[in-house]
Amino acid sequence: MTPKRAFNEQPKSDKKVLSIATAAAKLFSSKGYVETSGEEIAASAKMSKSAMYYYFSNKSDILYFAVSTFIDTVLNNVREDLEGIEDPAERLKLIIFRHIRTYAEHVYLAKTLLNEVHNLPSANRKKIQAKEKQYFSVISETISSYSESQIDKDRLTALTFNLLGMCNWIYSWYNPKGAMSGEDLAQMIFDIFTGSFWKINQAKD
Amino acid sequence: MTPKRAFNEQPKSDKKVLSIATAAAKLFSSKGYVETSGEEIAASAKMSKSAMYYYFSNKSDILYFAVSTFIDTVLNNVREDLEGIEDPAERLKLIIFRHIRTYAEHVYLAKTLLNEVHNLPSANRKKIQAKEKQYFSVISETISSYSESQIDKDRLTALTFNLLGMCNWIYSWYNPKGAMSGEDLAQMIFDIFTGSFWKINQAKD
Repeated sequence: MTPKRAFNEQPKSDKKVLSIATAAAKLFSSKGYVETSGEEIAASAKMSKSAMYYYFSNKSDILYFAVSTFIDTVLNNVREDLEGIEDPAERLKLIIFRHIRTYAEHVYLAKTLLNEVHNLPSANRKKIQAKEKQYFSVISETISSYSESQIDKDRLTALTFNLLGMCNWIYSWYNPKGAMSGEDLAQMIFDIFTGSFWKINQAKD
Repeated sequence: MTPKRAFNEQPKSDKKVLSIATAAAKLFSSKGYVETSGEEIAASAKMSKSAMYYYFSNKSDILYFAVSTFIDTVLNNVREDLEGIEDPAERLKLIIFRHIRTYAEHVYLAKTLLNEVHNLPSANRKKIQAKEKQYFSVISETISSYSESQIDKDRLTALTFNLLGMCNWIYSWYNPKGAMSGEDLAQMIFDIFTGSFWKINQAKD
């Protein structure tokens, strides 16, 4: 028997840990968390089940590690990055480009975050939701500072979710290897959201 | 033993059938299809499991009936409704208002359509996907006719998915009983998409 290590004691940079999480996210995002077995994750990560369970106590810990690593990547330095930019439109642009880049680069992790968090036990789910709220606030504040006038709270919430809708929905259709680059897509979302899309696109002809 | 009737022979208007599908969609959209049992659906529809299985052969048939009924509602007469409208902006408005109204009225069915279709066996999944494609084409054509100039095919696809992103994402956050009416939300999405949101909202102050 290999000794079990608590999740918090994992060296997060450990390549094995990351390769397990990546393999798991790919399976979770195609078959769903519930229908993915520990055996399948281990096989996909090219290790034995007992080797895998040296790093994680159970499947739920793998899910938690995968989504918390991803949301940490999404949040990583976002406030610091924004602080350096004075123009509110440029701040909004940074948010959108950053989101599309991160979600398109880690499409399985993004799908897992968007669809599988409800499978986590309450304490871990709340930790993820708190980080999602932080991210929501960053976007909301950026939109608010972009607006020339005060936006009513409920409308700001709806506006933020509409922007997130365009940005998150890419998980259901966007192929980063397809005809449209991530930058083109991010620019399109920025143009739609800021109201310049039709002006720019009709002017081209 | 009650005789099993094939799915296609169900009288679709049957109240019992609809109440089973509605109860099932509520469970599917909160717990997920895989984790919902036949017992739970029957209990929620207030009937015995054997009475329920008089109407449906199995859980998969209930899922198929629920999502196909919903996508039929979404598609119902949409082309005919659009044909009566000359102004491309009004056609786009109709599409958006119709989508928000239908998805907000049937939030459990909408969530089930967006998240659980992959659980259907291939033949039924393909039937649903074909109807989703029809709906996508209607939206795409409406956007195309709204544009004053020809839009490149890949950009039109991205544009259509961005509009659908705002409209579909409401399943994750919008509360029809909350502060914002469905009409206000639909108007906001229309204004964002057509580029008039900031003009209108800044002008108000």
